[in-house]
Amino acid sequence: MKDNILIIGAGLCGSLLALRMAQRGYRITLVEKRPDLRSVTQDAGRSINLALSDRGLRGLRLAGVEEAAKKLCIPMNGRMIHDKEGNTFLSPYSGRKGEYINSISRPGLNMLLLDALEKMPEVTIHFNMACEKVDLENATATFTHTETGKQQTLQGDLLIGTDGAGSVVRKSMFEHRKFLFSFSQQWLTHGYKELEIPPAEEGGYRTYKNALHIWPRGEDMLIALPNLDGSFTVTLFLPYENSDYCFNNLNSKERVLEYFQKEFPDALALMPQLAEEYFQNPTGALGTIKCSPWSCYGKSLLMGDAAHAIVPFYGQGMNASFEDVVVFDEILNDHEGDWGQVFLHYEKARKKDADAIADLALDNFHEMKEHTASALFQQKRKLEIAFETQLSDRYYSKYSLVTFNENIPYSEAMKRGRAQDKAILNLLDDGLLKDELSLEEKLALVEKETNAILHDDAVVKNL
Amino acid sequence: MKDNILIIGAGLCGSLLALRMAQRGYRITLVEKRPDLRSVTQDAGRSINLALSDRGLRGLRLAGVEEAAKKLCIPMNGRMIHDKEGNTFLSPYSGRKGEYINSISRPGLNMLLLDALEKMPEVTIHFNMACEKVDLENATATFTHTETGKQQTLQGDLLIGTDGAGSVVRKSMFEHRKFLFSFSQQWLTHGYKELEIPPAEEGGYRTYKNALHIWPRGEDMLIALPNLDGSFTVTLFLPYENSDYCFNNLNSKERVLEYFQKEFPDALALMPQLAEEYFQNPTGALGTIKCSPWSCYGKSLLMGDAAHAIVPFYGQGMNASFEDVVVFDEILNDHEGDWGQVFLHYEKARKKDADAIADLALDNFHEMKEHTASALFQQKRKLEIAFETQLSDRYYSKYSLVTFNENIPYSEAMKRGRAQDKAILNLLDDGLLKDELSLEEKLALVEKETNAILHDDAVVKNL
Repeated sequence: MKDNILIIGAGLCGSLLALRMAQRGYRITLVEKRPDLRSVTQDAGRSINLALSDRGLRGLRLAGVEEAAKKLCIPMNGRMIHDKEGNTFLSPYSGRKGEYINSISRPGLNMLLLDALEKMPEVTIHFNMACEKVDLENATATFTHTETGKQQTLQGDLLIGTDGAGSVVRKSMFEHRKFLFSFSQQWLTHGYKELEIPPAEEGGYRTYKNALHIWPRGEDMLIALPNLDGSFTVTLFLPYENSDYCFNNLNSKERVLEYFQKEFPDALALMPQLAEEYFQNPTGALGTIKCSPWSCYGKSLLMGDAAHAIVPFYGQGMNASFEDVVVFDEILNDHEGDWGQVFLHYEKARKKDADAIADLALDNFHEMKEHTASALFQQKRKLEIAFETQLSDRYYSKYSLVTFNENIPYSEAMKRGRAQDKAILNLLDDGLLKDELSLEEKLALVEKETNAILHDDAVVKNL
Repeated sequence: MKDNILIIGAGLCGSLLALRMAQRGYRITLVEKRPDLRSVTQDAGRSINLALSDRGLRGLRLAGVEEAAKKLCIPMNGRMIHDKEGNTFLSPYSGRKGEYINSISRPGLNMLLLDALEKMPEVTIHFNMACEKVDLENATATFTHTETGKQQTLQGDLLIGTDGAGSVVRKSMFEHRKFLFSFSQQWLTHGYKELEIPPAEEGGYRTYKNALHIWPRGEDMLIALPNLDGSFTVTLFLPYENSDYCFNNLNSKERVLEYFQKEFPDALALMPQLAEEYFQNPTGALGTIKCSPWSCYGKSLLMGDAAHAIVPFYGQGMNASFEDVVVFDEILNDHEGDWGQVFLHYEKARKKDADAIADLALDNFHEMKEHTASALFQQKRKLEIAFETQLSDRYYSKYSLVTFNENIPYSEAMKRGRAQDKAILNLLDDGLLKDELSLEEKLALVEKETNAILHDDAVVKNL
């Protein structure tokens, strides 16, 4: 009989992992702190939609649920940029057809995964059970029922923590002190707050449906993603303090309305409940978490946000977690039978890519709030879209490499993408991409400069 | 009457800080976990000498103890590189006269600072008192006497934690949870062990006195710094595991001797007690710690290793901590009277430089163990020394910028130094620094390429 895997955390990563492991014949005990989300109304103010793209879809495909998930998807073809005067322009994510990202409901997708999982044999799911304590060496954890207060200890042959950014399993590794545990938590000085653009009164969408809307304002930023019911989930990113308008001083309805009127008047016009929602919904923190090792004793492993929580600005959090499951599944194909080796090979294969998407997501924070409004950046994007449209088999932007090329690891996408960006920005800044050049000649210059940058970096790195 | 400053940790940073603050007229309560090192024999295996250079000397000068400290110093003019055959060559730290670093006894310097401090009025020093708990909001801490077990609570008007890499004050900020605390601990997969080359039997030094000796072996490295008594403190840097020879498998005297005979035969010949010492002395871990904020409530502050512990490979740990005191003193000149503002301005001025020296120290780990043995690196150093010798007012290597130019912040030294290294390595790799060029022409090429690199990076950074 195959091993029993104790999985702590039935969010998106834990549910997909459990489903895939069940499909491989393992016995699954999946434990979740929250109630079964199929039986309760959702909290307001928790992220209720997410960007799903090719890496995430690949994970869903592996578990046979891609088509079902696609029914929940709303394609977003690009960024719709809103300036202060309410002017908009669409900056496509790619010049190639079929390269778009999707807005999908977090609870909707989570329910789909739980439904699929429950159809498998030898799967037990416990809800309302908060993990209190983990015995890393023996794959054992103790839980308290959140309603009855009753304690229960569960044991697996191995234990996997998919319990998110605030992972109790990771915390127990941090506090374990029998091995060196590298750990980093980095908070942005910005927080976020979720708000809503409701559906139009006659039904349908109050603004363009098939885009990720951005109101970039330098330090502040508002974004909106569409939902199936005609609403948009809006997220405000704002410093906590030390700014004319910040979370610490937006402390009255008047101040909130004044701020939106000044910075986001076209969005304000679509948000009749803004002032109430602003004070009902919590303000969340934005952090990056990295750690190593991800496993110990060949018994316990971290996966998903528990191992590598990232800021949301690349729309890759869920995608990276689903890709974890794909990589873990590939490692199992080669090393099944020795969990210690599986865990070590998994981290070796995956860690550099988890680090890379964390760094890329921070890049994109600056890109979204500031650069999308910069003339040089817009020139770059225009040129990249022209390359991707007219020379589509020869050029992939950093965004495309990260988002639409699931066969290229994040770390490679970061290295190549950053070099390309640097090449184009400098060629533009130096006035070398002259109008009289053909698009092919421009691309040849970009390729040459990109390769020179990669070569120069390699000379230092490979010393 | 001026405020009472409760300083936790009477190591090098805490002692210098206490001395300088006492000189500014503050009342000082300095508390140390260890016994008074003037009254006990030193532990074997703790780092007993350190590299002192210009930034550290500047801190000592500020407190009027530079000349006294210099009497404890042994100048080291360069790196003496030892190959496996026992051949040596000296790679100078600079081509300019008077640019050298110093080997100094840690306890000797610490005692000097404590002696100077005790001569000041309104200074109380408590030894043998381990900090158990800190009240960050009220500048209060509770200590347990390590011999009597008695508990005592001390209160200051403000509290400064100079309690080193394992700081209890920092830990209490981490666990405080009333503000977002960014924190990172990164361990190397290498550990270290201190050993000794004793004085020659007839007195004097068994190898060249005025150098930092290095035996670079790719992954492993041995170094040695001279002491006043004729001995050298030797440090072995070695992976913990996954290597033919590593701490986990050097588990018998025969294995240790076999390893040294193979890799460091000339050092082995100078270390008659090696096999015994190896098993007597502890193996230490090598970590980098970064955090932010360094202060809270305008009441509590971290300084020195407590705020930014670094790996030892740039010889800048003590120097950076002493420079902390210099920067803090400058900030006090502008903002004395409002501790909250002092703390915020101090972190704003200092954090980027503390981060930079942490990263530079990791650069140097690779440089020392691998690059010093690489032909391209050696060509670079040869050229840099020629620049510094013959065109000495026009070129400062990264090492010189960091070590001998205390008026240039670490962050600037890192930016310029890395760009120069990249420029020279690539010009050499491309064969552009041809023999027929004059030294001035070569420097002109290096300057042009360095500026191009800085410009290209700035275009991306300043988008």
